[in-house]
Amino acid sequence: MPTLVIANKCYSSWSLRPWLLIKQLGVAFDEIFIPLDLPDTKEKVLRHSPAGKVPILIDGDVIVWESISIMEYVGEAYGAPVWPEDRKARAMARSVAAEMHAGFSALRSACPMNLGKKYAQKDRGEAVARDVARFSEIVRQARERFGAGGPFLFGAFSAADAMYAPLVTRLDTYSIALDATTRAYVDAILLLPAFQEWRSDALKEQWIVEADEVGEDAIENYRKAA
Amino acid sequence: MPTLVIANKCYSSWSLRPWLLIKQLGVAFDEIFIPLDLPDTKEKVLRHSPAGKVPILIDGDVIVWESISIMEYVGEAYGAPVWPEDRKARAMARSVAAEMHAGFSALRSACPMNLGKKYAQKDRGEAVARDVARFSEIVRQARERFGAGGPFLFGAFSAADAMYAPLVTRLDTYSIALDATTRAYVDAILLLPAFQEWRSDALKEQWIVEADEVGEDAIENYRKAA
Repeated sequence: MPTLVIANKCYSSWSLRPWLLIKQLGVAFDEIFIPLDLPDTKEKVLRHSPAGKVPILIDGDVIVWESISIMEYVGEAYGAPVWPEDRKARAMARSVAAEMHAGFSALRSACPMNLGKKYAQKDRGEAVARDVARFSEIVRQARERFGAGGPFLFGAFSAADAMYAPLVTRLDTYSIALDATTRAYVDAILLLPAFQEWRSDALKEQWIVEADEVGEDAIENYRKAA
Repeated sequence: MPTLVIANKCYSSWSLRPWLLIKQLGVAFDEIFIPLDLPDTKEKVLRHSPAGKVPILIDGDVIVWESISIMEYVGEAYGAPVWPEDRKARAMARSVAAEMHAGFSALRSACPMNLGKKYAQKDRGEAVARDVARFSEIVRQARERFGAGGPFLFGAFSAADAMYAPLVTRLDTYSIALDATTRAYVDAILLLPAFQEWRSDALKEQWIVEADEVGEDAIENYRKAA
């Protein structure tokens, strides 16, 4: 059984991606949890991978890091339907997944993933608006062309959805205005059983990571204890 | 036959990655060339892909963007040996390729790819030094564990090498000090027939992209005409 090394479920967007995919596809795995931003965090992560970042998948003597390569590995090693079966859909799914991997930097930096809070709608700048518009365009195109078989980007849940899941939570956390198609897609992700499980774990966490708290008054604080 | 949409061979590091892989693996393809930073650049790129960035691979009615997904597509659609055959090597190859895709930002921003010039060695800061050290560590680990069959990261040339090729040119262009293992690997990439062909095309280009010129005196200017 593979082991996935992850960080705080409240804040670690990179951890969420492969966790959600593997969980939702029903591949059994163990978790190793390393809390972010503590004095021994770096050393603990480096014990598992010289790249020094979570997530990391350990499977016997195979070590895989970076969410996108963990996803490819799980597809190959466990025969899980990580990508859409149709080759045109698969090409687009891998393209939008890679676009996420190195993109959407304005939205990611202005609106850190924070499952513990909800903030009021406000103008977050032109660069953020451009990222939101590009995401909505991806949702519209994928759903129109390949979305017939279900509520996700390519119908059934795939690695492309897992890659965008943290961005989806940001749209919700920061109350960003969305068109109906994008809103329906966001709701489909938030209602996924695997995501609900992740979120429920996140809300039990006590740690506050200051770098991921935007310093506005929240309109909801879901982690009563934190 | 697929068509690859690329930009300036002198400067476009993202264009080099899939071009080098496909060329070196012997898959026939056409090129569409769109020069960077001209008034109609953006519009021309958007004609091929809504993501608005090169490279783009067009294969009949399939459109693939982002170098990493183009590489996966070429492997699947053309049966090209894009990744190492051994599954442990393949897992590491995909991991280091993904690490490149969203990493090494200090080196990439301080030392833009510029095949037309060579600069003297100088201190380029701690963050750049850390990126160089991480790259050398990747080369050492990959070569030690999987490099027996050839001079590349995983022996035979693969997508992982193509992903790092622009970084390799930067190490050369900016005369960055390297250990012997890394230097030998850099030389293997620079001597690849496909890279030589790319470089020769690059040196015929006339365009100057100011954003990619670091504003130091070069010790060599290979593009006599520019």
